[in-house]
Amino acid sequence: MRIEIICTGDEVLTGKIVNSNFSYMAQKLEDVGLAVIWGTTVGDDRETLLRAFQQASERADAVIVNGGLGPTVDDLSQEIAAQAAGVTCVLNEEWLTRMEDFFRRRSRVMPPNNRKQAMLPSCAEIIDNPIGTACGFALDIGRARFFFTPGVPRELKRMLEEQVIPRLLAKSGLQTTIHLKRFHSYGLGESHVDALLAGVEELVPDGSVKLGFRAHYPQLETKLTVRGRDIDDVRGKLGPVETEVRKRLGNFILAEDEHTLEGVVLAELAKRGATLAIAETFTSGQIAARVGPLPGAETILRRGVLARDLRDLWSAVGLAGVPPGGELTKETAETVAEALRRSSDASHALAVLIDVDEGPDRIEFGGSVCLAIAGPDRVASRRSRIVGGREWVRLGAVELGLDCLRRYLQALPVDERTDFEKR
Amino acid sequence: MRIEIICTGDEVLTGKIVNSNFSYMAQKLEDVGLAVIWGTTVGDDRETLLRAFQQASERADAVIVNGGLGPTVDDLSQEIAAQAAGVTCVLNEEWLTRMEDFFRRRSRVMPPNNRKQAMLPSCAEIIDNPIGTACGFALDIGRARFFFTPGVPRELKRMLEEQVIPRLLAKSGLQTTIHLKRFHSYGLGESHVDALLAGVEELVPDGSVKLGFRAHYPQLETKLTVRGRDIDDVRGKLGPVETEVRKRLGNFILAEDEHTLEGVVLAELAKRGATLAIAETFTSGQIAARVGPLPGAETILRRGVLARDLRDLWSAVGLAGVPPGGELTKETAETVAEALRRSSDASHALAVLIDVDEGPDRIEFGGSVCLAIAGPDRVASRRSRIVGGREWVRLGAVELGLDCLRRYLQALPVDERTDFEKR
Repeated sequence: MRIEIICTGDEVLTGKIVNSNFSYMAQKLEDVGLAVIWGTTVGDDRETLLRAFQQASERADAVIVNGGLGPTVDDLSQEIAAQAAGVTCVLNEEWLTRMEDFFRRRSRVMPPNNRKQAMLPSCAEIIDNPIGTACGFALDIGRARFFFTPGVPRELKRMLEEQVIPRLLAKSGLQTTIHLKRFHSYGLGESHVDALLAGVEELVPDGSVKLGFRAHYPQLETKLTVRGRDIDDVRGKLGPVETEVRKRLGNFILAEDEHTLEGVVLAELAKRGATLAIAETFTSGQIAARVGPLPGAETILRRGVLARDLRDLWSAVGLAGVPPGGELTKETAETVAEALRRSSDASHALAVLIDVDEGPDRIEFGGSVCLAIAGPDRVASRRSRIVGGREWVRLGAVELGLDCLRRYLQALPVDERTDFEKR
Repeated sequence: MRIEIICTGDEVLTGKIVNSNFSYMAQKLEDVGLAVIWGTTVGDDRETLLRAFQQASERADAVIVNGGLGPTVDDLSQEIAAQAAGVTCVLNEEWLTRMEDFFRRRSRVMPPNNRKQAMLPSCAEIIDNPIGTACGFALDIGRARFFFTPGVPRELKRMLEEQVIPRLLAKSGLQTTIHLKRFHSYGLGESHVDALLAGVEELVPDGSVKLGFRAHYPQLETKLTVRGRDIDDVRGKLGPVETEVRKRLGNFILAEDEHTLEGVVLAELAKRGATLAIAETFTSGQIAARVGPLPGAETILRRGVLARDLRDLWSAVGLAGVPPGGELTKETAETVAEALRRSSDASHALAVLIDVDEGPDRIEFGGSVCLAIAGPDRVASRRSRIVGGREWVRLGAVELGLDCLRRYLQALPVDERTDFEKR
């Protein structure tokens, strides 16, 4: 089935906002085995909208149109959809009532211009939007089925997943259950993981397991898309493959599915009633900023201390005198972590110290990271060198620090070699 | 002139990467007075690429194609461009030599498959790429001029600004100088600023000054695009308008052009040889993370202290006992700022304390912010309530904290009412 996406709106066309709705939709469709073959972006203009709808109707079997369902005069999707389908717009009493209820529940009176949102092409099938006033709908233009969705991301998300994708799957004839299994890792590059996982798809010989990746440095997401008759069939197929993926990627898997590195770290600490303190230099609070916002962090993240100069950090964690001169060492990081643990009264302390290169930012710009974790009964530390520009070093050091803390809490080695460091 | 943009590549089409190249190009063109009227996204597929080129050539006067100039087999732009133009690809000796030099300067031998990057349509005009091996080029397909650009953002940026835009301006017949003036503000919404600036465009009666906005919460960018015969003409037109904008937006302008809020704060501190310490709760290091990465921060950002619980923060800044119970107050923030200033030995201390609402995240979720700034000779503080969900509160509090520090350092009132707070 050939699927196209048309994104509408001057804000998207002029680049005032980055079109993340497009990438979200394309990914969601791919995750259920549907592929997008063409994307179009046009503004709030009658002539170009009509032309975009007509051209898509000649190329595609299904088209998702995003945006243009709002109450203002520049929202044109219903009007142009009707024109392209050769029908007129009529007031949909059912949706009008829904909108009036929507405002009433919020103790407001519906402004008159919202009435426009209930004017729908006469042949339209309504697609529910339980959390907004923009009415989704579907209709045929030429030989293609068009699905009109709201531009507000949370409304789009809900409508796409609950309403549009099931209709697309039914239309495509894919009478199957599809499940997406995700593994998040840090420290291995995409091509390395691809090589490590060579052959795992073939563990299910009928081709119903597909391997994919999404790299967002420093993390990599490994995706298994599994098709089956029903959920039991999917589970049966996925079982041996996910076991094999866990075996081959081993300690590098930091979380699965909806879980995150910082969430796993927080859960490990919560499980043992532990508390955390963090000392940072060049990362300037970015490690703490990953953990701090999570629900539950208020009882666990006891203290964060940062300074851009090691001497300032030294006194801030309660150490006397000055830090040792010369090259940064693991021992210095251990001293800082242990002092922070004492002065903050936290059960665990993470210290991530970085010596960055001199000179302007450049692709060869690097940093030497020395980090240590002090807990109730042992201290672990590692040294690493990351190269690739200031921001690259900073992002890498944040991830390395949090991942080593995860490894420490899960009793795994903290110094396994990663693909992102130089030695 | 009708301009289209075609973005190519499976990574963009499948949503694996968000298409920020498109929004970057559309904004850059708008900034010089050129408008994009159509955007197309297609994958690395011969048939769809050809169709996309042909359709664009029928609609547009100029087309920018992004991506597909790399050395691998799925990079198809040169091949399909030649096909669409009815010519063949030939080896460009000049670019081959350039690439060999490129690798030689990096002490590497050019891999054989890079040779493909010098195979260009026979009628192509070369467009220089001084920082990569992807050769830009231009040619006519039908009645439209096509410009082929690399997908790597920094290579695209340089080629677009230095090579493509001047050619587009020449083609469009806009024989004018265009200048973009930008003001960054915090605390006023887009419609509010639009109302405040009503009529400023008309200060130059010939219509050569255009007002625009780009909102990225919590900041707003106000843009003046000025056209003129030459730079003196532009300066003469811009002068009275920018004076008027500064007068009307007043203290809310936090920076202009390439400058940032955190950069302005750091420069104000550097100017007086001052140092800074920051205490945070719910923002969890995000305020320090804005200042810390800047060049020069290593001598100024002396200490950051954060804790998710106010009692933990209390002892971390060196205060004895426990913080006062009950509602959070400005006085508590002042006490923390003064204690932090003493314990860190910094000349200035910023304390941003937040009491967040109970319960799950929701649009009505809010936080009460009490912040204080202690300097060598005075303390300033303010209270504010921000509502709009956890992330909204956190982003708002980070900005409020930094902007109050800017106002303090610039001897402006720190408690001017913003559009983003409830009272």
